[in-house]
Amino acid sequence: MSKKNNNDKLMIFALGGVGEIGKNMYVIQYGADIVVIDSGLKFPEEDMLGIDIVIPDISYLTENRDKVRGIVLTHGHEDHIGGLPYVLKNLNVPIYGTRLTLGLVENKLKEANLLGDTKRILIDEDSEIQLGNLTATFFRTNHSIPDSVGVCIETPEGNVVHTGDFKFDHTPVNGQFANLHRMAEIGTKGVLALLSDSTNAEKPGFTPSERNVGIVLEDIFRKAEQRVVVATFASNVHRIQQVVNAAESTGRKITVIGRSMVNVVSIASELGYLNVPDGMLIEPEEMNRMAGNRVVVLCTGSQGEPMSALTRMARSSHRKVDIMPGDTVIIAATPVPGNEKYVGRTIDELFRLGANVIYSGSNSGVHVSGHGSQEELKLMLNLMKPKFFIPIHGEFRMQRRHAILAEAVGVEPQNIFITEIGEIVEIQNGAARRAGKVTAGNVLIDGLGVGDVGNIVLRDRKLLSQDGILVVVVTLSKQNGAIVSGPDIISRGFVYVRESEGLLDEANRIVSSTLQRLMSEKVNEWASLKTSVKDSLGRFLYEQTRRRPMILPIIMEV
Amino acid sequence: MSKKNNNDKLMIFALGGVGEIGKNMYVIQYGADIVVIDSGLKFPEEDMLGIDIVIPDISYLTENRDKVRGIVLTHGHEDHIGGLPYVLKNLNVPIYGTRLTLGLVENKLKEANLLGDTKRILIDEDSEIQLGNLTATFFRTNHSIPDSVGVCIETPEGNVVHTGDFKFDHTPVNGQFANLHRMAEIGTKGVLALLSDSTNAEKPGFTPSERNVGIVLEDIFRKAEQRVVVATFASNVHRIQQVVNAAESTGRKITVIGRSMVNVVSIASELGYLNVPDGMLIEPEEMNRMAGNRVVVLCTGSQGEPMSALTRMARSSHRKVDIMPGDTVIIAATPVPGNEKYVGRTIDELFRLGANVIYSGSNSGVHVSGHGSQEELKLMLNLMKPKFFIPIHGEFRMQRRHAILAEAVGVEPQNIFITEIGEIVEIQNGAARRAGKVTAGNVLIDGLGVGDVGNIVLRDRKLLSQDGILVVVVTLSKQNGAIVSGPDIISRGFVYVRESEGLLDEANRIVSSTLQRLMSEKVNEWASLKTSVKDSLGRFLYEQTRRRPMILPIIMEV
Repeated sequence: MSKKNNNDKLMIFALGGVGEIGKNMYVIQYGADIVVIDSGLKFPEEDMLGIDIVIPDISYLTENRDKVRGIVLTHGHEDHIGGLPYVLKNLNVPIYGTRLTLGLVENKLKEANLLGDTKRILIDEDSEIQLGNLTATFFRTNHSIPDSVGVCIETPEGNVVHTGDFKFDHTPVNGQFANLHRMAEIGTKGVLALLSDSTNAEKPGFTPSERNVGIVLEDIFRKAEQRVVVATFASNVHRIQQVVNAAESTGRKITVIGRSMVNVVSIASELGYLNVPDGMLIEPEEMNRMAGNRVVVLCTGSQGEPMSALTRMARSSHRKVDIMPGDTVIIAATPVPGNEKYVGRTIDELFRLGANVIYSGSNSGVHVSGHGSQEELKLMLNLMKPKFFIPIHGEFRMQRRHAILAEAVGVEPQNIFITEIGEIVEIQNGAARRAGKVTAGNVLIDGLGVGDVGNIVLRDRKLLSQDGILVVVVTLSKQNGAIVSGPDIISRGFVYVRESEGLLDEANRIVSSTLQRLMSEKVNEWASLKTSVKDSLGRFLYEQTRRRPMILPIIMEV
Repeated sequence: MSKKNNNDKLMIFALGGVGEIGKNMYVIQYGADIVVIDSGLKFPEEDMLGIDIVIPDISYLTENRDKVRGIVLTHGHEDHIGGLPYVLKNLNVPIYGTRLTLGLVENKLKEANLLGDTKRILIDEDSEIQLGNLTATFFRTNHSIPDSVGVCIETPEGNVVHTGDFKFDHTPVNGQFANLHRMAEIGTKGVLALLSDSTNAEKPGFTPSERNVGIVLEDIFRKAEQRVVVATFASNVHRIQQVVNAAESTGRKITVIGRSMVNVVSIASELGYLNVPDGMLIEPEEMNRMAGNRVVVLCTGSQGEPMSALTRMARSSHRKVDIMPGDTVIIAATPVPGNEKYVGRTIDELFRLGANVIYSGSNSGVHVSGHGSQEELKLMLNLMKPKFFIPIHGEFRMQRRHAILAEAVGVEPQNIFITEIGEIVEIQNGAARRAGKVTAGNVLIDGLGVGDVGNIVLRDRKLLSQDGILVVVVTLSKQNGAIVSGPDIISRGFVYVRESEGLLDEANRIVSSTLQRLMSEKVNEWASLKTSVKDSLGRFLYEQTRRRPMILPIIMEV
C-alpha cells in the first residue's frame, strides 16, 4: 500500500463515456498522480454534419501532463482505443494493455506514425503495475472481444475498481472465464469506489452466452443449400471463431471480405486468439469457382454502413461477391441506435436479390450482446460491495437505471454519483462529494482537421443543408456608387433553377431596387448595404417559398 | 354485380405504401373506372435534406382524371390522409370516409382552402357506394384510431379487398369490435385479391389489446405522488380515452398541451368518439395552482420531435409546464425507426430534471401497436381466403415475410405479388400477371414548393452539409484579362476562419497563380478558367484538409 499524504485527495471523473455511449475516457487522480483508463472515439451525432469522428477534450490532461502516469486500456474496441492516435500526438505517455488490445492499437499507431514514439507495456491478468504512487491490478472479464479486463487502482484513499465492458458468460467460446474469484478477492479486501458498465442497465435478466450464437450458426450453415454470408463486427473474435467452427463442421471454406475484417482476422490469428485450420481461408476468386454449399463469406457491414462490404453486395456493386438467389445472409449484430434505417435498407435489398436474410430483429438467435444485463450488473455490485458507486458507459437513463440497481443491492443512495463529463467526484478521508468540473467536451474531427470545426461552422452546414445558399454578386462604381454590373444571383441547393427562373428574376429586381433606394438615401457603408440586401431578399424568398436559404451578398467596387 | 366487358382488365397498383412505410395510396382500376384508396404523406428520409414531407407522384391519376371516381379513405392517420391537400389541388374528385376520418380531413382542407371545392361523402360500415362500374362496401377493423375500415371493391372480374390498417382487438376500448362476421361473409362470397397490412409481419404472435394499456395507466396514475405527464400520438383517441378514464378513477384533472392534441381532443369529443366528463379538462394555469397528485398533463411529443410539447418541457423551455422532481412522465409510444435518438435524448433530459420516466423500451406496458402481428395476419388471410395476395403497407422485408405467412395458410406461391410502387398486377379472366409500371415516385415538398426540389438540389445540399462552400470572386480586365480585383475567398461551413487564415491565404495564392498561368497560355474562355480554379483549389484543399467543399468560382469582367 502506498503512502498517504493527509492533504491529498482522490479525484475521479470521466472525460468521455458518461451521458453518452462512446469516447470512453476516465481519470483517476490522487495527489500528483493521474491514471487514465481508456481513450476512445465516438461516431458523430446526426447534427454534427460532415464530422468523421469525435474524441474527448483532453485539455485537463495536457495541462497536467507531468502528472499523467499512463493510459490503461481495458479492451480493443474503438470506443475505448480509437482516440489514441489523436491523444498520443499531444500527450506522449505509456500505454498499458493486454496482448490483443495492444495488437489492435499497434496497427492504429503504425498508420498514424506514432508507433516508434509510444511506450507500450503488455499486461495480463496477473500484472501489477506501478503508476507513480498508484498501483493497478487487473481481472479478466467476458466481453464481445477477447482479452478484456477490469482494473483495480489502489490509492492511499482506497481501491477504485473500473469494470471495463463486461458480461458474465458461463460458457465462453474461448474457455476464458470471467475471473469471479479475483473479483471476489478484490471485494473482500474492500472497494472504495466502483465504476461499472451501464450499457444494458435497462435490460432485465441475464445476457445469453455467446456460445448460443454458435449453435444457431452451425444449424443455419448445415441447412443452407447455397452460400452463407455472415456479417458481424470485425472485432468480435469470438463470433468469428464460431463462424470458423461452424464452417469446419459443415465442410465449408471461408473467404474474408472487408478491410477491417481482414485486418482483425490476421492480427487475432497471429496472436493466437483465433484458431483457423490450415486451408480454411480461400480467396474470393476461388470461392466463386466452388459449389455454393461449400463456402462461407465472412464480411463487414452489419450496421448497413454505406461503403461496407455487405452494403456493396446488397447493391450488386461489390467487385468480388455477387449475391445469388438462394444464398443465405446472416446479419449477426443488432443495429446501433441511429443505424436502424441503414440496416433495414440493406436487408430489403438482399431480399430483393433473392437471398434468405436472417437478422436479429427476427428473434433468430444470431446475435447476443457483449454487455451484461441487470442481473449481471447486480452480480458485479455484490461481488465488489463498493462504498461509492459511479455508473459509467451509458446515456443518462442507463446510468440512472444502474443507480437504481445499486440501491436495490444495498449501496447507500447518497453514495451513488451519476456524473456528467468533467464532473469530479472527490473522496477524502472516506467522504465523497461533487467537487466542480474540469474542462470537458467534444473535439470534432473532420478530415485532417482536429477541432477546427466548431459551432459556427456546424450551424452554417445545418443552414446550408436545409435550404441551400444564394450568392448575390454586384459591382458598384467607385465614383458614384451606381451598379456597374449585376446583381447576379447564383444558387446552390435552394431550388431547381430551370423551374424557378421567374422567382430568381424577381429576386434580382428586389436586390437592384434595394441598392438603388439605399444609394438615393446616400447609404454607402458596405455592411449596411449587405444587411439590407440580405433582409429584403430573405423576406421575399420566405414569402414566396417558406424557405430561408443562406444569403451571401458580395459587393465589389471598380 | 356490374357488367363485364370482355376486353376490360382489372389493374391493381400502389402509388405509395409498398417498399416503404408511409404515403399510402392504392389504385384499383377496371376499364374506365379508377378508385383510389387513401392519400397519405411520408416524412422525409435522412438523405432528403431540408424536405418537409413527401407525397406520391400522381401523374397517372391526373393523366386519367376523367376516370377517377373518387378517393376512399380507410382511416384518419397522416400516412393515409396527409397527402390530400396536395392531391386535391390537382385532382378534384369526391372523397369518401367515416365520420372521424372526414372530421380530421375537413380540418386539413380548411387550412388549405379546399373545403368548399371538395365533395365529401360520409360512409359507415353499412354503406354501399357506386364508383362508376365499381361498388365499394366496408368492414370495421380495429386500429390505433377509431372509425377505421377495410374496403371491398366489387369489380366485374371479382372482389378486391383492401384491409386498411388493422389488428384484432377482442376487448376494444370503445366496444367497437372488428366485424369478423362481415369479413367472413366477404370471404364466403369469394375474394379475388387481398391487399393486406404488412407492418407487423415480422412480429410473431398476437398484438396485445389496447385495453391492457389502460390498466397500466390507471395503476401508474394511482401510485404517482405528483403530476403525471402522458405523451402519446394525438390521433390515438382510444389511448386518450383511457387517459381520461384513468384520470377520472384516480381523481385527477387533465390539461391538454400541444396543437395537434388540442385539435384531436376537440374534434373527437365533438363527434362523440371521445367521452370526457364535464369539468375534467382544465387550463394549464389552473393546473399549476393545483396539487400535483390531482392533475394529468396530456401532450404531444412522444417521438421526441424537436418542437413538440414534451421536448420543450424536457428542455425546461415550455411556456406553461415545468417538469418538477417527483413528476411521472409516461411516453406511451414506440419510437418510429429513425427517431430512437430523439426519444432517448428526451428521456435523458426528463430524468435529469428529476422525473420518473416510464417508456416502452423498459417493458412497461404503456404502449401496444395498432397493427396486427403474424397470427392476426393469418387470421385475416383465412377469413378472406383470397385467390391472389398482394402484401402492402410495409418495407420489402415485411411484405416478404407477409408473403411467407400467406403461403403458410395455403395461398399458391405463384399467386402472391410483392410489388414496387407503380408496378401493375393485371387480372383478366381469373389469371393474374405483372404488367409493367405506371409513373410513380416521390414528390418532395419543401416549404411552399411541391416538386421543385429534385436530385440536383438534394445533391448540392448534401455536399454543402458535409464540407461547406468556398466562393471565389475575381474581377478581370476586359482589355487584357489581368486580375483587377480579388481573388477574394469567402467560406461558409468549411472551417473556422480565424484558426485557418494561413490555409485561406495559401488558397488565394493558388487561385491567383492558376489564373496567371492560364492567361499566359492565352486561355480565356470562362468555362475553362472556372474549371481550372475549381480543380486546382479543390486539389489543394483536399491535400491540406481531406475535405471537399463545394467551390463556386465567380469571375467578373470590367
